[in-house]
Amino acid sequence: MSQTYQRIVLASRPQGEVVPENFRLETVSVPDLREGEVLIRNHFLSLDPYMRMRMEDAKSYAAPQAIGETMIGGTVGEVLASKNPQFAVGDQVVGMLGWSEMGVSDGVMLRKVSTSHIPLSAYLGAVGMPGMTAWYGLTQIMQPKPGETVVVSAASGAVGSVVGQLAKLRGCRTVGIAGGAEKCAYVVNELGFDACIDYKAGHLEADLAAATPDGIDALFENVGGEILDASLARMNPFGRISLCGMIAGYNGEALPIKNSRVLLTMRLTVRGFIVSEHLELWPEGLKELGMLVATGKLSFRESVAPDLASAPAAFIGLLKGKNFGKQLVKLI
Amino acid sequence: MSQTYQRIVLASRPQGEVVPENFRLETVSVPDLREGEVLIRNHFLSLDPYMRMRMEDAKSYAAPQAIGETMIGGTVGEVLASKNPQFAVGDQVVGMLGWSEMGVSDGVMLRKVSTSHIPLSAYLGAVGMPGMTAWYGLTQIMQPKPGETVVVSAASGAVGSVVGQLAKLRGCRTVGIAGGAEKCAYVVNELGFDACIDYKAGHLEADLAAATPDGIDALFENVGGEILDASLARMNPFGRISLCGMIAGYNGEALPIKNSRVLLTMRLTVRGFIVSEHLELWPEGLKELGMLVATGKLSFRESVAPDLASAPAAFIGLLKGKNFGKQLVKLI
Repeated sequence: MSQTYQRIVLASRPQGEVVPENFRLETVSVPDLREGEVLIRNHFLSLDPYMRMRMEDAKSYAAPQAIGETMIGGTVGEVLASKNPQFAVGDQVVGMLGWSEMGVSDGVMLRKVSTSHIPLSAYLGAVGMPGMTAWYGLTQIMQPKPGETVVVSAASGAVGSVVGQLAKLRGCRTVGIAGGAEKCAYVVNELGFDACIDYKAGHLEADLAAATPDGIDALFENVGGEILDASLARMNPFGRISLCGMIAGYNGEALPIKNSRVLLTMRLTVRGFIVSEHLELWPEGLKELGMLVATGKLSFRESVAPDLASAPAAFIGLLKGKNFGKQLVKLI
Repeated sequence: MSQTYQRIVLASRPQGEVVPENFRLETVSVPDLREGEVLIRNHFLSLDPYMRMRMEDAKSYAAPQAIGETMIGGTVGEVLASKNPQFAVGDQVVGMLGWSEMGVSDGVMLRKVSTSHIPLSAYLGAVGMPGMTAWYGLTQIMQPKPGETVVVSAASGAVGSVVGQLAKLRGCRTVGIAGGAEKCAYVVNELGFDACIDYKAGHLEADLAAATPDGIDALFENVGGEILDASLARMNPFGRISLCGMIAGYNGEALPIKNSRVLLTMRLTVRGFIVSEHLELWPEGLKELGMLVATGKLSFRESVAPDLASAPAAFIGLLKGKNFGKQLVKLI
C-alpha cells in the first residue's frame, strides 16, 4: 500500500466559467484508521453537473464546497483496510469520497455492491445517483401514462438517457433534445427514443413541433433557458415538468423563463427536486434500474477520463456538453 | 316584464390594453322559453381578470370569447319565468349569464342559493368562484401548516383577501402584497393579515424581506412579473406556489420569470390551475366559505359599478387595479 495518495481540492471559486485554476492537485498521507472506519481505494470518480453549484458560495440546496477541501463526488472502489465489522478487505463499495484516489469512510454513506451482473462503474451512472434522478423525476413527478409524449433535454447524458428509456418501457412516445447530430443519432438508434432534436441545428421550435404532433405531456428538464422555453410552448394541459437541472445557467447566465404564461394557461405543474432528499425511494428505484441493466434492457454510455489529474478538464468539458454519456474519471 | 333588455357583446379583440371600443351595448328582445329553460333577471354581474384572457384569440384554457356574443361572466339574479321543474319564479340563482340584464338558462349551470344569512352578491365573491379559487389554491396546492408563512399578491382583491383570511384561520403568518397605502391598511386592519407590502412604494424586495423574516413557505400568485420574482427570492425549501393569475401580463407584456433558478435550488412546486376544472371540490369549499361568511369570520369588500353601461369602464379599471375588493356591476 502506498503511504501517500493524490486528491483534488477546490482552490478558488469560479468567476463565471470554471477554469483549471479553480482546482489544485495535492499529495497527502494515508491516515491511520480509527475504530469503525474503512479505507477505500477509488476505482472510478463520478463527475456531475451538480458539483458546479456546490462551487458557488450561494444560497442553494446544500452547503457550499469549502475552499481547500477535497472536491465532493460519488466514487466506486474497493476496501483496502477496515476497522468496521460491516466491511471487509476486498469489498466493492459505492461512496461519496470525492475527487481522490483514496478515502476514509465511517461506513454511514458506504454501500456494498456486486459486480456479478452490473459493472462497477454503472453504480455511478444508470444504477446510481443519475439513474435514481431519472427514476424519481419520471415516476414521482412526471407520472406519464402509456401513449403520452415525454420530452427529455440533455437526452444523451447520464440522467436523460435513463429517463427516455424508462419512459419508453412505460409505453410513452419519447423525444430527446441533445447537442449535435452524433448525440441525436445515439439517442434514437441506441437508446430507442422515437425522435431526437439537435438544438444546435438552429430551428429548435420547429423541429420540436414536428416531433411532438400531439404536444408534450411530461417534460424532464436538465438545461433551462431557451430549451425550456421551447418545450413550454408545446406543453399540453395538465402537463408535468420535472425540473432537475439548469445547466445553461450554471455560470451565472441570466436564465429567464419567458414562456411563463403557459404555466397558467396550460395548468402545468413544475417541481424542482434533489434526489438525495428522497432516499426512502432508492431501494425501489435501484431495484428496477439494476434489473434493467443486468438484463441488457437499459443502455448507457460512458466518457472516461484516464486519471485524477485529468478530472478538472473533464469536468469543464462536461459543463460545456463535451462528454458523451456518463462522465467518469478512472483512478486505477 | 319588459320585452327587451340590454347586453354587452365583444365588439373587437384588444390590441394591448382593453379599450371601451372593444365592447358594444345592445338592446335585444326577450326570447320565448322552450321546455326546460329558465328566464332570469340578473341583479349583479361579476367582473373578473380571467375575462381578459378570454378576449384573446390565443391558445389558452378555454375557447376564446366569440366576437358579437354576450361577454362571458358570472351572475346572480332571480327567476322571472320557468319551464324547468327545478326552478320556480322568485328563486334566487347563481349562473353564468354574462354581461346582460337578463338571460336564459337550461338549468345545467344554474344553482339556487339562499340569502337568509349570506348576501346575494357574496355568491359572486367570497362564496363563489373567487372564494373557491382561494380555497382550492390554499388547500390543494399550498397546503400550509400552522406557523408557516403564506404570501398573497393582490391581497385586497376578491381572491387574495380570502386566501389570507383562510390561511390565518389555519394558524399561518400571512403577508399580503397590494398597491397603495389604503389597500394595505385594509389588508392588515380589516382582513387581519400580519403584514402587507405596498409594491408601489418602490422597495418591494426589502419590504418583503422585512415582513418574511423566516422566508416564504407558500405563495398565492395573482400578478406575475416582478412581484412573483420578489417572492421567489424569499421562498424556503419545498415551498409551494399556487399560480392563479398573471394580471401584470394580460395586455401582452413580456412577463419572464427571472428568478427561475430558485425553482430548482429551493425544490419548489409551482402549479397553475383553473378552479372551474375542479367542480368536485366545490361543495366542500363552498360549505366552509359560506359558514365563515354567515358567521362573520370572513370579511370582504365590494366595488360596485351602478349599471350595465358602466361595466366596460369598471372592467378596464379592474385590470389596472383601480377596484378595491370584489368588482361587481349592479343591474337592478
